[in-house]
Amino acid sequence: MQQPVRIAPSILSADFANLGAEVRAVDAAGADYIHIDVMDGHFVPNLTIGPMVVQALRPHSAKVFDVHLMISPVDNFVTAFAKAGADIITVHPEAGAHTHRTLQLIRSLGKKAGVALNPATPVSVLDYIMDDVDMILVMSVNPGFGGQSFINSQKDKIRAIRQRIDAVTAGTSRVIDLEVDGGINAEMAPVAISAGADVLVAGTATFQGGPEAYADNIRRLRGPLV
Amino acid sequence: MQQPVRIAPSILSADFANLGAEVRAVDAAGADYIHIDVMDGHFVPNLTIGPMVVQALRPHSAKVFDVHLMISPVDNFVTAFAKAGADIITVHPEAGAHTHRTLQLIRSLGKKAGVALNPATPVSVLDYIMDDVDMILVMSVNPGFGGQSFINSQKDKIRAIRQRIDAVTAGTSRVIDLEVDGGINAEMAPVAISAGADVLVAGTATFQGGPEAYADNIRRLRGPLV
Amino acid sequence: MQQPVRIAPSILSADFANLGAEVRAVDAAGADYIHIDVMDGHFVPNLTIGPMVVQALRPHSAKVFDVHLMISPVDNFVTAFAKAGADIITVHPEAGAHTHRTLQLIRSLGKKAGVALNPATPVSVLDYIMDDVDMILVMSVNPGFGGQSFINSQKDKIRAIRQRIDAVTAGTSRVIDLEVDGGINAEMAPVAISAGADVLVAGTATFQGGPEAYADNIRRLRGPLV
Amino acid sequence: MQQPVRIAPSILSADFANLGAEVRAVDAAGADYIHIDVMDGHFVPNLTIGPMVVQALRPHSAKVFDVHLMISPVDNFVTAFAKAGADIITVHPEAGAHTHRTLQLIRSLGKKAGVALNPATPVSVLDYIMDDVDMILVMSVNPGFGGQSFINSQKDKIRAIRQRIDAVTAGTSRVIDLEVDGGINAEMAPVAISAGADVLVAGTATFQGGPEAYADNIRRLRGPLV
Amino acid sequence: MQQPVRIAPSILSADFANLGAEVRAVDAAGADYIHIDVMDGHFVPNLTIGPMVVQALRPHSAKVFDVHLMISPVDNFVTAFAKAGADIITVHPEAGAHTHRTLQLIRSLGKKAGVALNPATPVSVLDYIMDDVDMILVMSVNPGFGGQSFINSQKDKIRAIRQRIDAVTAGTSRVIDLEVDGGINAEMAPVAISAGADVLVAGTATFQGGPEAYADNIRRLRGPLV
Amino acid sequence: MQQPVRIAPSILSADFANLGAEVRAVDAAGADYIHIDVMDGHFVPNLTIGPMVVQALRPHSAKVFDVHLMISPVDNFVTAFAKAGADIITVHPEAGAHTHRTLQLIRSLGKKAGVALNPATPVSVLDYIMDDVDMILVMSVNPGFGGQSFINSQKDKIRAIRQRIDAVTAGTSRVIDLEVDGGINAEMAPVAISAGADVLVAGTATFQGGPEAYADNIRRLRGPLV
Repeated sequence: MQQPVRIAPSILSADFANLGAEVRAVDAAGADYIHIDVMDGHFVPNLTIGPMVVQALRPHSAKVFDVHLMISPVDNFVTAFAKAGADIITVHPEAGAHTHRTLQLIRSLGKKAGVALNPATPVSVLDYIMDDVDMILVMSVNPGFGGQSFINSQKDKIRAIRQRIDAVTAGTSRVIDLEVDGGINAEMAPVAISAGADVLVAGTATFQGGPEAYADNIRRLRGPLV
Repeated sequence: MQQPVRIAPSILSADFANLGAEVRAVDAAGADYIHIDVMDGHFVPNLTIGPMVVQALRPHSAKVFDVHLMISPVDNFVTAFAKAGADIITVHPEAGAHTHRTLQLIRSLGKKAGVALNPATPVSVLDYIMDDVDMILVMSVNPGFGGQSFINSQKDKIRAIRQRIDAVTAGTSRVIDLEVDGGINAEMAPVAISAGADVLVAGTATFQGGPEAYADNIRRLRGPLV
Repeated sequence: MQQPVRIAPSILSADFANLGAEVRAVDAAGADYIHIDVMDGHFVPNLTIGPMVVQALRPHSAKVFDVHLMISPVDNFVTAFAKAGADIITVHPEAGAHTHRTLQLIRSLGKKAGVALNPATPVSVLDYIMDDVDMILVMSVNPGFGGQSFINSQKDKIRAIRQRIDAVTAGTSRVIDLEVDGGINAEMAPVAISAGADVLVAGTATFQGGPEAYADNIRRLRGPLV
Repeated sequence: MQQPVRIAPSILSADFANLGAEVRAVDAAGADYIHIDVMDGHFVPNLTIGPMVVQALRPHSAKVFDVHLMISPVDNFVTAFAKAGADIITVHPEAGAHTHRTLQLIRSLGKKAGVALNPATPVSVLDYIMDDVDMILVMSVNPGFGGQSFINSQKDKIRAIRQRIDAVTAGTSRVIDLEVDGGINAEMAPVAISAGADVLVAGTATFQGGPEAYADNIRRLRGPLV
Repeated sequence: MQQPVRIAPSILSADFANLGAEVRAVDAAGADYIHIDVMDGHFVPNLTIGPMVVQALRPHSAKVFDVHLMISPVDNFVTAFAKAGADIITVHPEAGAHTHRTLQLIRSLGKKAGVALNPATPVSVLDYIMDDVDMILVMSVNPGFGGQSFINSQKDKIRAIRQRIDAVTAGTSRVIDLEVDGGINAEMAPVAISAGADVLVAGTATFQGGPEAYADNIRRLRGPLV
Repeated sequence: MQQPVRIAPSILSADFANLGAEVRAVDAAGADYIHIDVMDGHFVPNLTIGPMVVQALRPHSAKVFDVHLMISPVDNFVTAFAKAGADIITVHPEAGAHTHRTLQLIRSLGKKAGVALNPATPVSVLDYIMDDVDMILVMSVNPGFGGQSFINSQKDKIRAIRQRIDAVTAGTSRVIDLEVDGGINAEMAPVAISAGADVLVAGTATFQGGPEAYADNIRRLRGPLV
C-alpha cells in the first residue's frame, strides 16, 4: 500500500562546503529522509563523497540517512557505510552479479536494504528479491549528475513496481518504500506520486533559493494539501 | 634547491560536515597549501570526495589547492578537477601506463603537475619525467587512511629525490616541490625537512585540538624558528 | 510496421586492404546501408577497425553508415564515431550498466540510436527504452567473426521484437528498424524477413564472388520480386 | 519431464587433503554425479580448485563430473576443464555478455552444457537458450561458501523453470536436468524435489559424519522410498 | 652496433580507405618496414585496426611488417597477428605483468619480438629481457594519435638504450633494432639517429603530399647522403 | 649471508587427488618448506587451489607452509591464507600498486612476508621494501605451469639480490630467504645456489618417480655433500 509521500533532499545539490548546516536546514525544513548520493567514478562518471563524509554528517540529523551507492563493486563498502551511520543502503543490480548477497549483507548489519534500477533496467530484476528489499528506487534520470529531466518511460516502471509491492505486502505489515530519483520538481512530483511513488528524491527542487526557501520547497513537493 | 618549508593541511582530518569553515580556518592559521585527498575506492580502499566538493571549497580560500588524485584511471577526471579549482594536480605512476600523457594533460590545462610515489615505488619512475613535473610527492604511508606512522625507508627516498631535483633545477629558475605525506607531526617534520622535503602534508597534526589550535599546530610543524 | 527490406553489407567480409573501393562497389550494387563492425578485443574476442577508418570511408559513399559498436565501455567512443561520419550508432546493453545514457548521448549528437541484443539476451532489455531507439539489432550469431550459421532461436526473438515495434509505432510516424545480423544468406533472408526483419546484414553473402557479383548477391538477398 | 532424483555431492565439503578417496567414497555410497565447485576469487569471493585438480580426480570415479564454474571470464577455461575430464560444464549468465557463445563452445567439445542462475537472477535469462542447455542449475544460496540456508524465493524459481523445461522437452527425447544447489539437506530435499528439481547438490549433508555415513546421507537425501 | 637507418612508415597516417595501395606505394618508395599501429581503445584511447586488416595487407608487400600492439591484455592476440603476417610483434611492458612470457610466445611462433617503452617508462624494464628482444621501441610521444611533437627527454633514453644494445651485442652476431616512434620528421630524424636510433617510424612525415611525394619524404628522413 | 640450502617441493607437481599424503611424504623425505602455488586464473593463466585446500593440508605437516600467491588483487585473500595456516605469504609487486601495504598486512597477521619477481621484473622494485620482507622469490620461469626451463638471465638477478640481502642483513640477526622457483632440477640447483639462492622450489624434480623416490630426489637437489 502506497504510504504518504516522504521527501528526501539529495545532497548532490547542497553546498558541499557546508554539509552539516545543509543537513540541519533540510531536517528543520521538514525533510523526511536525507538522500546521500555516493559515486565512485567507476559505476557512474562522477565522484562525490564517501563514508567519512556520511559519518561526519550523522550527528547533524536524526532523520533517516538514505544512502544510494552508485559504486561497483559494492560489497567492500557496505560495512563502512553501515558503520558511518546509514539507515537505508541502496545498491544497483547492474553493478554486480550478486545482488541477493549484497542485500543479505546489508540486512545482516541491521540496516534497511534498497535496490535501485537504472532507466533501462527491466523490472524482472526484482522477480526473486522482493522478500529481501525495504526500498525500491526508480532512477528517473541516468545517475551521475543533478539537473536532468524526468525520463517519461519511468512512469510505467513506477506503476509496474507499485503493483508488485502492493501484491507482496498486501495483508502483511511489511513496508517497501517506492522511491523515485531524477527530475523531481513541483510539476513532476504529483506525476510520480500518482504513478505510485511514496518517497521523492529532490536535489535542485529542494535546495534552490537557499536555506530560507527549503521549507517551502519541500512543501511544494508534497503537493497541494496531502 | 630546497625551498622554505610549506605546510599543507590534509583535508582528510578536517570536519567533513564543515569543510568550508575548516579551509578558512587553516588558511587563517597560516597554511600554505590546502591538500585535498581524492580517493575513488578503486586505486585505494577508501572513497573520499570528488570535484564538486573541490568546487564548493574554492571560494573559501585563495591558497594553493593541492589536489592529490588517488584514483585510477585518472585522465577522465583531470579536467573536472582543473575546472573545479585545483592549482596542483598530483597523480600516481602506479595508477596507469601513461603517466607522461597525464602530466602533459594537466599542464595543458594551465595547472601544475605533480607525481606521487607509493612507499614501495622506486625512484626510477622519475627518470624520464623530471621535465614534466612541478611537484614530487613521497607517500610516507600507504595512501588511503589518516593516522598512520611514517615509514622509515622513505627518508632515503626523500634524499634521493632531493638530489634529483637539485640536479635538474640547478642554475635554472625551475622549482619542483618535494612534498611528503604520511605520519608527519612535530617530531617527524624536521626529519622530513632535513631529508629534503619542502612541503609537508599534515592531517591529524594540523587539525587536532580544533580550530583554535590550528595556528600553533602549523607553527610547530615548521620547526623551531624558521 | 515492417518496412521494405534493406540490405546492409557487412564490412567484415570486405577486402580490408581496399575498403574505399569496396564501399563504392556495394553502394553502386544497391546496398542500402553500409554496416560497419567495430570490435575492440574486449567486448568480443576480435579487433577490427576504429573511428579513423570510418572517417576515411565516409567520402566514398552517401549511404547510411550503420555502425555497430561491439566495444565496452562504449561512451568514450560514441562521439568519435559520430564525428567520423556514422549515421546510426548501435550499442549493446550487455556491455554496460547505462544503456539509456548511451542512447541519449547518441541522439544528442544528432545520430540515430540502435540497440543490439546478443543471442542469449532476453527482450526484456527493451522494456523501458523503446522510446529511445531508432534501430533494434538482433544478433543471430555470436558477435566476433563472420561465417557463422543463423541460430534458430532468434526467429522467435525477431517475431517478439516485431510485435513490440509495431505496438509502439502504430498510429505514429515513428520508424524503428529491425535489423538482423548473422548467418544471413539467400536461404535465410526470407526466414528473417517473414519473422519481421526489415534490415538484413550480410557479409559473406554480399561479398562472395567479388565486385562484379555484388549486385546479384544483394538482389538475391531481397528475395524474389520484392 | 522430471527425472528420478539424482544426488550430486559437492566437493566443497569434502576433505581437500584427500579428494581422490572422498570421490571414491561418495561414488561407492551411491552418488550419481560428482559436483565440483570451481571458484576464482573474482566472480565469487572464494578460490577453490582448478583444472589440474579435476584431472587428478578423473581416474577415481566413472560417475558424471558435474563441474560448476563460478569464474569470470569463463571461455578461456572451458577447454581446460573439458580436457581435464568434466562431463557437464555449467556457467553463469551473470559472468559475461556471451552466454550463448560459451554454451556453444562447451557442446562443441562434446560436453553437456549447463547454465546456473544466482538467487537474484530472473528466469528471463533462459528465454533464448533453452535449445542450448542440458542442465539448469538454480543456486538456492549465494555461491561462494558451504553451509548456508536455502533461500525461500528459489522455490518459485524452481517451479517456473520446471514448467519451461517440461514445455520444451514434451514429446521429445531431450533431457534437461534441473539441479538445485544450496542449503539442501534431508529436510529441504523433498521441498526442492516437489518444486521440480531432479538433481540435488549437497555438501555438508553428504559429507557429515565421515565416509561410513555417506551412503546413509545420500539415501536420506533421496527421500523416503524412492 | 647501430645499423644503417631504416624507415618505417606508420600506417596511422595512411589513407585507411586504401591501405593496400598505400602499402604498395611506400614499399615502392623505399620503405624498409611497414609499421602497423594496433590500438584497442583500452591500453590507449584510440582504436585502429586488428588482425584481419594485417592479413589483408600481407599480399601487398614483402617488406617487414612491424606490428606495434598497443593493446592490453596482449597474449590472446599475439597468435592472431602472427598468423595474419606480422614479422615483428612489439608489446608494452606497461600493459601487463608478464612481459617475458609474451616475448617467449612471440618467438615461439617464429616472429621477432619487440618491446616498446612509453615516454615515462624507465629503461630498467629492460634489465632482464635483453636476451629476449629483437627490437626496442622508444615512444617519443604518448601512443594513441599521430601528429604529436617529439618529447625531448627521450633523447637520453635512446642514448641509454643504444649503450645497452651495444653492450649485449658486442662481439656477437645478434642484432637488436632500436626504433623510435613519435614526432619524427626531417628535422628530428638526425637527432634520433645521432642518439642511437636505427629504425625511424614516421607517419605524417611519410604520407604528407600523397603517393608521389613518398619517395622524397622517405629519402629526407634518411638524412643527407647516408 | 646465504643460508644452507632448503628445499621446497612445489605442490604443483604433486598428486592433487591425494595432497595430504603427498605433503606427509615430502615432509618425511626431508623437505624443508612446503611450497604452495596459488593461482586465480587472472594474474596467471592457470587456476590451482585456494585457502580451503591449504587449511585441509595444515594438519598433515608441521613444516613451513610457503604460500606463493599468484593472484590479483591480493589483499582480500591475505587474511584467508593466514588463517588457513600459511607461514610465509609471498606476493607479486606486478599484481598491484600497493606492495608495501600488502607486506605490512601479512606481517600484521604474524606471518612472514615474501615478494616474488617475475622474470622481466627489475630488482628496483625492491629498493624501498628491503625492511619489509622475509623472503624474496625469483621466478626463473614465467609463473603458471610446471615443467618449464630455467631462464638464463635470472642468474644475474639472483646474484644482484644476493648482494642486496647481504648488504642489509650484514651485522644484524635479520634473515631474508632468497628463493628460486622454476626449472630447478639436480643440474640447475647448484647453479642457483652458487648465484646466491638458499631456498629452492622444485616440482617435477621432487615428485618424479613417486613417493619412494622423494627422499633421493630432495637429496640430489641439495647437491653433493653440503
